[in-house]
Amino acid sequence: MTYCLAITLNEGLVFCSDSRTNAGADRVSTYSKMHRFSVPFDRSLILLTAGNLATSQAVVAQIQRDLEEETEFNLLKAKYVSEVADYIGKMSVREQSKHTGDNAPMAGFDAGATFILGGQIKGHAPELYMIYPEGNHITASEQHPYLQIGETKYGKPILDRIIRPDTPYETAMRCALVSMDSTIRSNATVGPPLECLFYRADSLQPQAQYFKLDEHHPYLARLRQSWDDNIRQAFDNLPSLSEVFETVK
Amino acid sequence: MTYCLAITLNEGLVFCSDSRTNAGADRVSTYSKMHRFSVPFDRSLILLTAGNLATSQAVVAQIQRDLEEETEFNLLKAKYVSEVADYIGKMSVREQSKHTGDNAPMAGFDAGATFILGGQIKGHAPELYMIYPEGNHITASEQHPYLQIGETKYGKPILDRIIRPDTPYETAMRCALVSMDSTIRSNATVGPPLECLFYRADSLQPQAQYFKLDEHHPYLARLRQSWDDNIRQAFDNLPSLSEVFETVK
Repeated sequence: MTYCLAITLNEGLVFCSDSRTNAGADRVSTYSKMHRFSVPFDRSLILLTAGNLATSQAVVAQIQRDLEEETEFNLLKAKYVSEVADYIGKMSVREQSKHTGDNAPMAGFDAGATFILGGQIKGHAPELYMIYPEGNHITASEQHPYLQIGETKYGKPILDRIIRPDTPYETAMRCALVSMDSTIRSNATVGPPLECLFYRADSLQPQAQYFKLDEHHPYLARLRQSWDDNIRQAFDNLPSLSEVFETVK
Repeated sequence: MTYCLAITLNEGLVFCSDSRTNAGADRVSTYSKMHRFSVPFDRSLILLTAGNLATSQAVVAQIQRDLEEETEFNLLKAKYVSEVADYIGKMSVREQSKHTGDNAPMAGFDAGATFILGGQIKGHAPELYMIYPEGNHITASEQHPYLQIGETKYGKPILDRIIRPDTPYETAMRCALVSMDSTIRSNATVGPPLECLFYRADSLQPQAQYFKLDEHHPYLARLRQSWDDNIRQAFDNLPSLSEVFETVK
C-alpha cells in the first residue's frame, strides 16, 4: 500500500508521499513516489503514484522516453495540465492491459495504479488531478481542496478539519505530515521516508520548498511528541460531559 | 454502515454507537445498536451490533426468547462473558446460514454481522470481545485497549493517540465522541443519535453513566466547535518546519 496526498491552496500546491511498497508482508521495499518534471519559467509538474509499482514505474519511464524521443505528444508539448492527466491515464490503462484479460497471470492480480498530478503550465492557473486506474480523472475543488490516493481513510479526518483554500502552506504541510503519521501508526504498509513539497503558484520555477524525513529524523520524532501532547491538551479543553449524563437503568 | 466502539479502562468499560443503518442510499433508517442486559448484583452485559440488520436483530430477539423460555443456555446461565460471546457467535452463524449457500437470494448479498460484547459476571473481572461474522471472537488487550466494528478506519487514529488503560472514563467518552464525529464527517452512512455508556468495574449494577445525543443536541455542536478550535491551536503549536526545508531544483 501507499499513502499520498496533495492540497490546492491559494498560495500554491502541497504534495506529500510515503515511500513504502509491499507485495506481501515479506516483500517490503522503499521507493520514492514523488516525481518532478520542470522547465524553468514554462512549466512545473509533480506526479505522485500509488498502486501497482510495475505499472507506475512503466508510466514514469514512458514519460521520460517520450521526452527523450520528442514524440508527438509529451510533457513539453502539453498546453494544459489536464492534457497531461489524459496522457498519463491512457499510458496507465495501456500498461495495465498488458497484464490482464487472457494473459492475466493469476486471479486476484491487480495491475491498477492511481496517480495524483499537479502543477502549472505558463498562462494558466495551477491545477490538480487524481487519475483513476481506469484512466479518467477528477480535480479538487474549493469545498474539497485536497486529493488522496492509496490508504486514504485514517488520514482524512484531520484534513477535513484543518484544510481550507486560505490555509498557509506551512500549516498545510504540517497537516499533511500529521495525516501521514496517523496512517503510518494504523497501517504497517505505509512508512517513511516522507517527502513533502510546496509549489508556489505562478513561480514556474524548478526550485521548490521541499523536505524528506526518514524514520529517525529528529523533526519527525519531535512532531509526533508535540502532536500527542497538544492533542491531549485539546481533549482536556473540551466541554465537560457532566451536563449530558443521565443515569439509566 | 455503522460505527461502534468499546474501550476497556482500569475504571471500567466505555461503549459508543451510532444509529444509522442503510441498505442503499435511499433506505437510510435509525436504529439503536446498543443493547443492555442486566441482573442487579450478578451480571451486566452490553452488546453493540454492526453489519446486516436482519441478522443482528434476529440474534438480539433470540437472546430475549432464550431468556423467556429459560432454555438450557442463556444469558442468565453463563458463567463467563466469553461463554456469552460463543453463544452469540453460534446464533449469528446459524442465522446467516439461512440466507446463504443454495438459498442465497442474489450474488453479493452479505448476511454477515459483527458484534462487540462487554460487561461483567460476578466473581470475574470485566471482559470485552469482538465477535466476527464467522462466530469466533477476540478480546482487547492492554496494548490495544479498544475494539471497533463497522466503518473503523476514520476514527482509529484519535483512539491510538489518546486511549490508555489509565485514561479517565470521561476523557475516553469524549474521545469516543470525537472518533465518532470524525467518522460521521467522512462517511454518510454513519450518523446520530450517538449513544455512549460507561459501566463502572465491579459495580454489577444496571445503573450506568449514559447519554444519547441527537443530531441537533447543543452539546454535540459545542463539542464539534471546541474540537475544531482546539485542533487548530494544536497545529499552531507544532514545531516549525523552517529547520527541515531544503530548496531543491
